[in-house]
Amino acid sequence: MLERYRDYACLVVDGPDQPGLVAAVAGVIRGNEGNIVSLDQYTDDPQGGHFYQRVVFQRPELTMARPDIEGSLDAALRPLGIRWSLVDQSVPKRAAILVSKSDHCLLELLWRRRRGLLDLEIPMVISNHTDLAERVRTFDVPYFYVPSVAGPDKSASEAKLLELIVGNVDFVILGRYMQILSSEFLTHVGVPVINIHHSFLPAFIGANPYRQAKQRGVKLIGATAHYVTEDLDEGPIIEQDVSRVTHAMTEEELRAQGAAVERAVLARAVKWHSEDRVIRHGNQTIVFA
Amino acid sequence: MLERYRDYACLVVDGPDQPGLVAAVAGVIRGNEGNIVSLDQYTDDPQGGHFYQRVVFQRPELTMARPDIEGSLDAALRPLGIRWSLVDQSVPKRAAILVSKSDHCLLELLWRRRRGLLDLEIPMVISNHTDLAERVRTFDVPYFYVPSVAGPDKSASEAKLLELIVGNVDFVILGRYMQILSSEFLTHVGVPVINIHHSFLPAFIGANPYRQAKQRGVKLIGATAHYVTEDLDEGPIIEQDVSRVTHAMTEEELRAQGAAVERAVLARAVKWHSEDRVIRHGNQTIVFA
Amino acid sequence: MLERYRDYACLVVDGPDQPGLVAAVAGVIRGNEGNIVSLDQYTDDPQGGHFYQRVVFQRPELTMARPDIEGSLDAALRPLGIRWSLVDQSVPKRAAILVSKSDHCLLELLWRRRRGLLDLEIPMVISNHTDLAERVRTFDVPYFYVPSVAGPDKSASEAKLLELIVGNVDFVILGRYMQILSSEFLTHVGVPVINIHHSFLPAFIGANPYRQAKQRGVKLIGATAHYVTEDLDEGPIIEQDVSRVTHAMTEEELRAQGAAVERAVLARAVKWHSEDRVIRHGNQTIVFA
Amino acid sequence: MLERYRDYACLVVDGPDQPGLVAAVAGVIRGNEGNIVSLDQYTDDPQGGHFYQRVVFQRPELTMARPDIEGSLDAALRPLGIRWSLVDQSVPKRAAILVSKSDHCLLELLWRRRRGLLDLEIPMVISNHTDLAERVRTFDVPYFYVPSVAGPDKSASEAKLLELIVGNVDFVILGRYMQILSSEFLTHVGVPVINIHHSFLPAFIGANPYRQAKQRGVKLIGATAHYVTEDLDEGPIIEQDVSRVTHAMTEEELRAQGAAVERAVLARAVKWHSEDRVIRHGNQTIVFA
Repeated sequence: MLERYRDYACLVVDGPDQPGLVAAVAGVIRGNEGNIVSLDQYTDDPQGGHFYQRVVFQRPELTMARPDIEGSLDAALRPLGIRWSLVDQSVPKRAAILVSKSDHCLLELLWRRRRGLLDLEIPMVISNHTDLAERVRTFDVPYFYVPSVAGPDKSASEAKLLELIVGNVDFVILGRYMQILSSEFLTHVGVPVINIHHSFLPAFIGANPYRQAKQRGVKLIGATAHYVTEDLDEGPIIEQDVSRVTHAMTEEELRAQGAAVERAVLARAVKWHSEDRVIRHGNQTIVFA
Repeated sequence: MLERYRDYACLVVDGPDQPGLVAAVAGVIRGNEGNIVSLDQYTDDPQGGHFYQRVVFQRPELTMARPDIEGSLDAALRPLGIRWSLVDQSVPKRAAILVSKSDHCLLELLWRRRRGLLDLEIPMVISNHTDLAERVRTFDVPYFYVPSVAGPDKSASEAKLLELIVGNVDFVILGRYMQILSSEFLTHVGVPVINIHHSFLPAFIGANPYRQAKQRGVKLIGATAHYVTEDLDEGPIIEQDVSRVTHAMTEEELRAQGAAVERAVLARAVKWHSEDRVIRHGNQTIVFA
Repeated sequence: MLERYRDYACLVVDGPDQPGLVAAVAGVIRGNEGNIVSLDQYTDDPQGGHFYQRVVFQRPELTMARPDIEGSLDAALRPLGIRWSLVDQSVPKRAAILVSKSDHCLLELLWRRRRGLLDLEIPMVISNHTDLAERVRTFDVPYFYVPSVAGPDKSASEAKLLELIVGNVDFVILGRYMQILSSEFLTHVGVPVINIHHSFLPAFIGANPYRQAKQRGVKLIGATAHYVTEDLDEGPIIEQDVSRVTHAMTEEELRAQGAAVERAVLARAVKWHSEDRVIRHGNQTIVFA
Repeated sequence: MLERYRDYACLVVDGPDQPGLVAAVAGVIRGNEGNIVSLDQYTDDPQGGHFYQRVVFQRPELTMARPDIEGSLDAALRPLGIRWSLVDQSVPKRAAILVSKSDHCLLELLWRRRRGLLDLEIPMVISNHTDLAERVRTFDVPYFYVPSVAGPDKSASEAKLLELIVGNVDFVILGRYMQILSSEFLTHVGVPVINIHHSFLPAFIGANPYRQAKQRGVKLIGATAHYVTEDLDEGPIIEQDVSRVTHAMTEEELRAQGAAVERAVLARAVKWHSEDRVIRHGNQTIVFA
C-alpha cells in the first residue's frame, strides 16, 4: 500500500457533454465528505461533444465509505449516460513487462520503480530470451522465460503468456518485445497493452525504422508509446518525443540515441497510465499529464 | 467584439482551500444556466493550502444574466474568503506596447494579432525613439513618441506615459523597452506590466546578459517573461524558454538567436495573460496554459 | 556587397574519399596566401566513402587572386575526381520567394533579412494571389502577381514564373506556395528550389497534414524544409523541427502552432543554404550548420 | 582494446591562429601515411585569435608509426607555438566515479558503458557511503568505501581518495558526490575532474537549487556538467540542458525531473570528454560534439 495516497481516490468519468456535469460530480464528492485535490477536464466540442474528467479526492476512511460513494455516483451519473470508474490510489497497479534482448526500456522502468518514481507492482518480467534474466533478478522481480515458437502459429507460446498474465496484472508493457501478438492474444489478455515503437509514428511504420530514418535523411528521430490494437502500429498514441540527429550519425548511432528517447517516452506513458491519466476514445487519447 | 466567444465568460477564483469549493462554484454556474466549457484548478497543498481555479462557461444572453451571476458568486464565495473575477471573453483586453529600437518583440505581437492568434486590442505603441514609427503604422496602430529624459529624474517622461496609458488599457507590455520604470510609475499605472528579459532568469540578471552568457561559456541561452515589480528582474515569472548555442557563436549571434526566443516567450506570456490564464500569488504564478 | 565578408571565400568540395584530400585543399589555400577561417568535413564511410568539405578562408584582394586560386584548385582536385565550387562570401545570394495567401513564412524571411540575420537579396516575391502585395511593399521588395491557371495544364502560368525567375536568382523559396510545380518547371528553372512542408516528413505526406495529425492523435507536430524534386514531398531534407501539442488543441490551433514551427524551420534552412552549408548527395543532405 | 578503433588516432591541437596551420597538420598526417577520418576546427577570432583543431586519422600499424608521427608533429608545430596531444583511440580512457547516495548518474554511466555507448574503463567507484555497493557489484566494478570525516579538515579522507585515484585513471567523474573537494585535492589529483551540478548554472549556484527553483517560480529546471576548479560551481561548462516544469510540481517532483536531466547531461559530457571532443580554454570549453 502506498501510505502517501491513503484515503485518496481517483475518479475518471466520460460521456456525452451536458450542462451540470461538473456540479453533479462535485456534488457527489461533497455529499460523501470528499475533498477534491485535483481536477482535470476536457470537452472535445462545446456543442454536443464528449466530456472527460479526472478528479482526485481525499476521503477519510475511504475503504469504508467506498460503497456509498459508488452508489451515489451510479445514481447521479448512470441516468445521464456517463461512464465512471473509481480507483483507490493507495493500491498500486500491477504490470507485466515483456521483453526480448534489449534492456534499456526494461531497466529504466525497474529503476524508476525502485527509486519511487513509478508506483507499480511488477510481479513478472517475461521474455522470449534468457539474456536479461540476471539483470532482472538484481531487482527482485521474477523472470519467466517463454520461448517463441518458430513459424506463424504463435498459439502455443501465447497460451503460456496468457497463463502467466491473465488475472495477475492490470496492464501489460511491451518494452521492446520483438514478437507480434495475435488478435486472439489481445482479446484474451483482457487488460490494456502498452507498446513502445521506435519511431515517430506514423513515420517509419514497420521494420527497421532507424534504417529507414537514415535512408530518408531525417533530422530528428523519435519514439511513440501507444496502446496495442489489432492494427499494428496504429493504436492510440499516449506519448511521443524526438531527438535531433545529423547526417554524420551512423545507423547504429541513431539506434543508440533512439534508445534514450524510447525509454523516456515509455516511462512517461507507463507513469501516466498507472495514474489513470490516460483516457482512450476511439483511436485517440486524452492525457491529463 | 469577438464573435466566437459571444456568451462565454471566464471566472477566476482563488483563496484558502476548503471542502466543497468545486461544488460551490459549479453549483453557481449550474444555477445560473451556464455550461462549463473548460476548467483548470490547482491547490498548492492538499492540507490547508491555497486554491486556484479558472472556469470558462457558456451562458446564453450572458450580458443580461451577468448581474445575477455576480450576485450568486458573491453570496456563495465571499463568506468562504474566496476572491473571484468574472470576465466576458468576447471583449478583448486592451494593451499598450512600449518599445525602444528593437522591433522583434513588437512585430511578433502585432503580426500575431493581425493573424488572429492574439485576441487583443492595441490602442497604442509608445516608444522613446522614432525608429519604429513607420513599421507600426503599417499595422494601423497609433505610435506615440515619448522621449526619455536624460538624467536620473524620469518623472517628466513617465508622467507623459501615464497620461497616455492610465484608463486606456488593461495591461502594459514592455517589448524590449530599455528604460527602467520607477516604482512611482508602477504604483500609478494601476494595471499589470509584463516585461521580456533577455536571459534565463535568475541567471544573468542585469545588463548585457548575452555578453555575460558568452563570457561564462553557457551552452543554452534563454528568455523570461515576467510581471514587473519594484525589484528589477525579480517579478513573478510567466514563461521561459531556452535555445542551444555553441562556443562558435559570437556575442552578436547569441543576441540574434536570443531574439527569436524572446519574441516567442513574450508572445506566449501575452496570450496567456490576455486569456486570464495566469494567476499571481506572491512571487509566483499559476499558469493554466 | 557585405562589407564584413570582404575577401572571404567559401569553398565546397566533394568526391570519393582518399588519403591526402585535406592536405591537398589546405595546400592550395596556403599556396595562394589564404587563411582558413573555418572548416567542416565529413566522410560517409572511412573505407571508400564519399568526402565532403566546406572551407571558409580569407584572402586579401580576393577578386584579383580568384583566377589563380581556381586554377590551382582545378589542377589539384580534378585529377582526383573531386568537384569543387568557390563562392565570394561578400556577394549575397539572390532568392525569389513564391507564396500564396499565408504570410507567416514570407514575413519571417523578410524580417530576418531586414534585421541582418539573413544575407540575401530578394529581388522578387511572386504570388498567385494579390493578398500579400501591400505587406511586401513595406519591405521595398517587388511583388509580382502570377495567377495560377485553372485545370491541370500549368504551363502558361509556369512560363510566366520562369520568365521572372530564370537568370535572375540563385535559388527559389516556396514559402507556403500552394501550387504543385511540374517537372518541366523544375528542369527549366535551373536553380535549387526549397520548400517548407507542414509536417514532420515522412509522416503526413500529402494534403491537410494538420487534419491528419489531429485524427491520428499525435503528440507532436512538425515541419520539414526540403529541396524540391519531381517526387513530391520526397526531396532531400534540409531541416526539421517539432512542437508539442495536446488532445485539447483544435485543428485550427494545431495549424497556428505549426505555422510557428514552419517559419523557424524554413528560416534556418534558407540561412544554411544561402551560406553554402548544405550539400546534396542523392536523396540526403550534409548540413554543416 | 577497442577493436573498431584499431589504428585510429585522435590529434588535438591548439595555439595562436596563423596562416597555414591546417595545411601543416594535414601535411604531417599525409606525410606519415595517415588518412583523415574526421576534422573539426574553430578559431575564436579570424584576426589574431586562438586556433583549436581535432583530427581523427587512420594509420595502419599505428603503434609502430607513432614515434615518427610524434616527431613530425613536434618538428612542425613546436616552432609555431602550437600545443598538440595524440591519443590512440583504441585505448579506452580510465575513469573513477565518485558518488554519495544517489544512484541515477552512476547507473546511467554504468548502463551506457555496458551497452557499448561509452568507451570507458571504470576501474573503481568510490563512495562516502555504502548504500550503492550492491548495485555497483552487479556491473563487476570495484566499489571502495571512503567515509568522509566530520569537520572541516578533509585531508584524511582526501588522502585516501588520492591513494586510490592517482596514477590509476585518466579522469574523475563526480556523479552526485556531496563532498566539496579541497584545492589541495584538485592540485594533487592531476587529472580532469567532471562534476554534474543540479541547476542551470549560473542560476541557483549553491545549496538546494531545486528549493531555490521552486521558490523563484521558474518554468524550466536544468543541469550543468562542468570541469571542477577551485571556484566552486564556476568551472568551465561542458554541457547543459533543461526540462519544462509547472507550478503544480512539488519540490520533490522537480528533483525527480531534474535527476533525469542530470544523468543525460553528465552522460553526454563524459562521452565527449572521453572522446577528446572537449578543449578547455580559460573558463570556457570548445566542444566538437
